Amino acid sequence: MKIKANNPELKSWLDVDKQSDFPIQNIPFGVFITKDDIITIGTRIGEYAIDLGAFHQLGYFDDVPLTDDMFMQDSLNDFIADGRKTWRLVRNKISEVFEINNSKLKDNAKHKEVIIFDVNEVEMLLPIDIGDFTDFISSKNHAQNVAKMFNLKNGTLESNWHHMPLGFNERASSVVVSGTPIKRPYGQILPENATTPVFGASEKLDMEVETAFITTAANHFGEPIPVNEAEEYIFGLVLLNDWSSRDVQRWESKPLGPFSSKSFASTVSPWIVTLDALEPFRCESPKQETLLPYLQQENTKNTFNITLNTYLETENGDLNLISASNFKNIYWSMSQQLAHQTINGCNVRAGDLFGSGTISGANIESSGSLLELSWNGENPITLNDKTQRTFLNDGDNVILRGFCENEKVRIGFGKCTGKIKPAIDLK
Amino acid sequence: MKIKANNPELKSWLDVDKQSDFPIQNIPFGVFITKDDIITIGTRIGEYAIDLGAFHQLGYFDDVPLTDDMFMQDSLNDFIADGRKTWRLVRNKISEVFEINNSKLKDNAKHKEVIIFDVNEVEMLLPIDIGDFTDFISSKNHAQNVAKMFNLKNGTLESNWHHMPLGFNERASSVVVSGTPIKRPYGQILPENATTPVFGASEKLDMEVETAFITTAANHFGEPIPVNEAEEYIFGLVLLNDWSSRDVQRWESKPLGPFSSKSFASTVSPWIVTLDALEPFRCESPKQETLLPYLQQENTKNTFNITLNTYLETENGDLNLISASNFKNIYWSMSQQLAHQTINGCNVRAGDLFGSGTISGANIESSGSLLELSWNGENPITLNDKTQRTFLNDGDNVILRGFCENEKVRIGFGKCTGKIKPAIDLK
Repeated sequence: MKIKANNPELKSWLDVDKQSDFPIQNIPFGVFITKDDIITIGTRIGEYAIDLGAFHQLGYFDDVPLTDDMFMQDSLNDFIADGRKTWRLVRNKISEVFEINNSKLKDNAKHKEVIIFDVNEVEMLLPIDIGDFTDFISSKNHAQNVAKMFNLKNGTLESNWHHMPLGFNERASSVVVSGTPIKRPYGQILPENATTPVFGASEKLDMEVETAFITTAANHFGEPIPVNEAEEYIFGLVLLNDWSSRDVQRWESKPLGPFSSKSFASTVSPWIVTLDALEPFRCESPKQETLLPYLQQENTKNTFNITLNTYLETENGDLNLISASNFKNIYWSMSQQLAHQTINGCNVRAGDLFGSGTISGANIESSGSLLELSWNGENPITLNDKTQRTFLNDGDNVILRGFCENEKVRIGFGKCTGKIKPAIDLK
Repeated sequence: MKIKANNPELKSWLDVDKQSDFPIQNIPFGVFITKDDIITIGTRIGEYAIDLGAFHQLGYFDDVPLTDDMFMQDSLNDFIADGRKTWRLVRNKISEVFEINNSKLKDNAKHKEVIIFDVNEVEMLLPIDIGDFTDFISSKNHAQNVAKMFNLKNGTLESNWHHMPLGFNERASSVVVSGTPIKRPYGQILPENATTPVFGASEKLDMEVETAFITTAANHFGEPIPVNEAEEYIFGLVLLNDWSSRDVQRWESKPLGPFSSKSFASTVSPWIVTLDALEPFRCESPKQETLLPYLQQENTKNTFNITLNTYLETENGDLNLISASNFKNIYWSMSQQLAHQTINGCNVRAGDLFGSGTISGANIESSGSLLELSWNGENPITLNDKTQRTFLNDGDNVILRGFCENEKVRIGFGKCTGKIKPAIDLK
């Protein structure tokens, strides 16, 4: 697969820092609102947000077949629904116009004024209207840590774990964009050694470091997607912080799984990085045990080398790297997740969101949750300012970062942040 | 609360059979497509489907403040989002125009021709664009049956059951309208005494007899809905058949709950019966154990007396009543469900769907699933034609009916049907 826009030799006439997540090879998609209150679909190069509504209106997509209002929308759903061919044509055209030797827009000051904005002057919105939100639990290290911690099945994985990408449905309404403050949620909690629950604000508020992929309209009701075709339907990825209240989760989860402990909020990064842009970072997926045929993949390179660094920024601005993980740690591939989601005929739509589950590395220090990092509060972690954390304090800002890097290019996701606000006063 | 349209003395100039679910006191809302391919929001009186788009365009909502295109839409979401005041004004106005002594529309043959259709000549569509779909497990009889059947916790309920309405997220994309055929789904199944799963079409395909309520935009992200205000945000109810493959469910459900075993399809009845229309059938809710304050209700009449009859129609047309249950059996009220859903700040939108969970009566014969009726296949039920069922056969048509009745009026939901088709040939 050759994708023109991925050419590592390309440079843009827009300034891009070497450490930027958004070189001209990235061309992610998001939705933002300008200081003039215009909502539009856009892309980003370096520190510039590019209004694709205006770009289209001014004719820069000339020979790309697109509806007139494709980008003047408050979500990417219609663009995503248009399919992979359109995504590629659009990324290639943007790449072409912003390439250093192309003077068409570069030399048109008037057009630049309405197309190009300082990224700090626009407000990023949730990029998709999410139809359904599935969360998988596809990191083996994470699943094993949890089993050990709570001594489930004598500390071993459930016997179904190696046979399918286990998943569950999550709440779509409360998925928010990076930067949205997260109020500490209330819920029922069973105190140690008690038999009756108490009501209160969660005291074990946690993050979950995940990625999530977003699909186009993939199949009809009743028709499975074959695993070896599944990637065709994946538009791109975002970072996902699936906030969880562990005390509420522990009490509510039997027998139906987590509910209130997760439905209060999940945060996604604002720029969707396309699967095409990640292509150069494709790598060998973990060895798997014998699988049922519907999960068997022809290729062995089914994952991507994406560094995932998580920072806890304290109220006084002290920044701590608390987890360094990698997407390639995931046991089940996105294609397997999508094949499993649809094997029963479940239909998948444009704008559906599929979380990886907490991504933990082989060492506890590379775990994607405080539950694991502090071993359910038994081993507090110490921050630079000598304060300790078992779970999140009010005022803590959790910052997820994700990027791929080789000698020539770096493709990143930017930040996925959420700051914890105190629980509200209840009426 | 006095609702003009509920007056049991009202009669319509449209013919309504005494046994109809849709007298002039009902005035439910749905979406249909006419034989001229026009999609519109409508209501129903007797065997007549009423095009509310045309009704509005021709001025019959004269003094009701409504946007011009309120009813010329393919979902009820915007109308529902307009709130309770609008719902009441609209129901009252429809009631007034179709009341036997009102000749305005009755004597206008031209208008009648574009407003009133034979209900068999229109095709009902899914009435809402579902944002999120929660399913609760709020029938105590059902929960107890399952615990006994699988000898969970020595046949007793989980200790959290009496403290909160347990629920889980379900898939919204695969909710379909009554009449949509249901293909037997594939999945992973662990054979008896095996340790490795096999792949195949479900052999334990089941129904679940439920109701579901639909909300308006109820709260902002981060703000709970108080239990005693919750009913204000409930628009109405539908019948819900939450199809389940029990063999798949058994193997996949630990530790995250049901996923593939339910996400292949859920069927809803096409007409949303408003909470207002059900008001005359409000009744005393079951006694509850001591509750945390956020679930304590001021009133004791928090449920509704809705008869739920389920029929299995065999391929040769033989109709069998297989379950006779009642909505009032539900332990947790809709208000408690909504208060619990939002206590953590989870936001609820117009068009969200909330299932009751399988509604089982005190006797096994009144259970809302074949799992219970056949005691997981141990005690097959015998049909009129002497064939037996443990779970559903290909060709079986499951028909849910729900209605309320007193000496003066009957308010019903019509039918919620789904016929089982054989599993498809996989590529």
